[in-house]
Amino acid sequence: MTLPAVLIGLDWGTTSFRAYRLGADGCVLDARSAACGILKVPAGDFERVFEAEIGPWLADQPNLPVIAAGMITSRQGWVEVPYCPCPAGSGEIARALRRHVTGAGRVVHFVPGLSIVGADGVPDVIRGEETQIVGEVGAAPGRRLLVLPGTHSKWALAEAGRIVWFATFMTGELFGVLKEHSILGRMIAAEASDGDAFRRGLAYARSSGGGLLKRLFSARTLGLFGELPESAIGSYLSGLLIGSEIVEALACLEQAPREPITVIGGSDLTERYLLAIADAGLPARRAATDAAAHGLFLIARAAGLVS
Amino acid sequence: MTLPAVLIGLDWGTTSFRAYRLGADGCVLDARSAACGILKVPAGDFERVFEAEIGPWLADQPNLPVIAAGMITSRQGWVEVPYCPCPAGSGEIARALRRHVTGAGRVVHFVPGLSIVGADGVPDVIRGEETQIVGEVGAAPGRRLLVLPGTHSKWALAEAGRIVWFATFMTGELFGVLKEHSILGRMIAAEASDGDAFRRGLAYARSSGGGLLKRLFSARTLGLFGELPESAIGSYLSGLLIGSEIVEALACLEQAPREPITVIGGSDLTERYLLAIADAGLPARRAATDAAAHGLFLIARAAGLVS
Repeated sequence: MTLPAVLIGLDWGTTSFRAYRLGADGCVLDARSAACGILKVPAGDFERVFEAEIGPWLADQPNLPVIAAGMITSRQGWVEVPYCPCPAGSGEIARALRRHVTGAGRVVHFVPGLSIVGADGVPDVIRGEETQIVGEVGAAPGRRLLVLPGTHSKWALAEAGRIVWFATFMTGELFGVLKEHSILGRMIAAEASDGDAFRRGLAYARSSGGGLLKRLFSARTLGLFGELPESAIGSYLSGLLIGSEIVEALACLEQAPREPITVIGGSDLTERYLLAIADAGLPARRAATDAAAHGLFLIARAAGLVS
Repeated sequence: MTLPAVLIGLDWGTTSFRAYRLGADGCVLDARSAACGILKVPAGDFERVFEAEIGPWLADQPNLPVIAAGMITSRQGWVEVPYCPCPAGSGEIARALRRHVTGAGRVVHFVPGLSIVGADGVPDVIRGEETQIVGEVGAAPGRRLLVLPGTHSKWALAEAGRIVWFATFMTGELFGVLKEHSILGRMIAAEASDGDAFRRGLAYARSSGGGLLKRLFSARTLGLFGELPESAIGSYLSGLLIGSEIVEALACLEQAPREPITVIGGSDLTERYLLAIADAGLPARRAATDAAAHGLFLIARAAGLVS
């Protein structure tokens, strides 16, 4: 057995499950992942997955506190936790934790998502990303602009360690449905990644006049007129959508970001966003790894679960 | 048998087929429609459909000229006709007609689509709509702004009977793929039409800050927070998309339209666009019916096929 832990953290999302054994100061002693996102748990038997994945760790240290964030706390998850309103940092989130005793008598602390009502009067929500942001930002003073690319991409502003604003962009889902089910998808020949086509899409997204509904059709006409090979249309469409997201997100802010924009995530998509932000002339940086693990630790500490 | 005709006109699209027996001055003597759009023609045997639908008319007047417009002239259709560049009116289109002799020895004149390179350097195309616009506008002097709602909605400017600008918006297709395949669609409970929710979507599309990728998520959050009943989410999404199209289209124009915007089409969608344009504070009018039939007649006359 390895070093003794002070906390078990779970980042349990729609499609993925990650568990961390965390030591003093939040260092990751062990990490494991499994393809048991909440949509893949048979009959909603979350406790069975929990015991199968975490049981061995708890066998060694039965009294370890457990904290869980992500869609596992949604209506479709194990224990629904109401949204905590913004602004919120680890303190507000810790006070809104939901304590749950499992059938086997284990105690799990579930992390709430966050809600906000935007300047336009429309509500928005995140669930899981708040923990990653808390982990990345820590108690840092000053202002940070962060992006979490994905099916529903999230942009957030943090000030002095608290999340003061966020917004959701349906970029990833739109790319998916257009690629799988639209006339544009039928033109996309292969999965090849084409940097020039990606940047062409980014540039068109930044141009003036028109908007996304009009620009989407360019993925068809540029192919039709031979200006883009079929193998490049997917990359072009990706650039057009990510570029549009960046334009929209910046338009939500009262002032242009002066500090580097932090991209959180570990996928190829993160690389694309770093490229796209740089192509827009803005500084970008990649977040530290294990932002979720560190966020779970900080929230648990704010709640007094660890010292 | 009815009055003698001077022309047979076909409006043969992706999903629909309409045929007209046209008299002098382009009056419609007979019209028929069939569910044999080009995607539904078995093995691409267009001549068989042609003979089945039009044969009886031609049996009475074997020497009647026949003219056809729509996706039947695309690469997926019967005879591909290259795009005619804008600006173009009935004269330019007539000169670009493609004469085709069928296996049975009938002569069919195929109408080209139109192409344009926008101010943003990106090409755009229409095929079929040019004929409706020509029919609606005729030789009218002055400037007309027109909308043709659909899967790929088209906006066009005509000046003195010639189409001088147009643009495509993927509004209808986007609504379809989001409704059928996205998380938003899973929230749409029923097909009920809700005028208040539609107008709420229109208003949000006109608000400042952000853009479509962000606003789409509001269809989810407004449902999540009980601000919209599930039965209203479809209408809200429709308003949000049509409203966004109107904002985008107007942003393409150098000046706001002073004359009423003409909506061409016969579907429920036409009604929604009339409502949406009026809601944006702009005058709107419905086009005359049979714009396609009249356009086919005007193009045939410009080509000397009828006197």
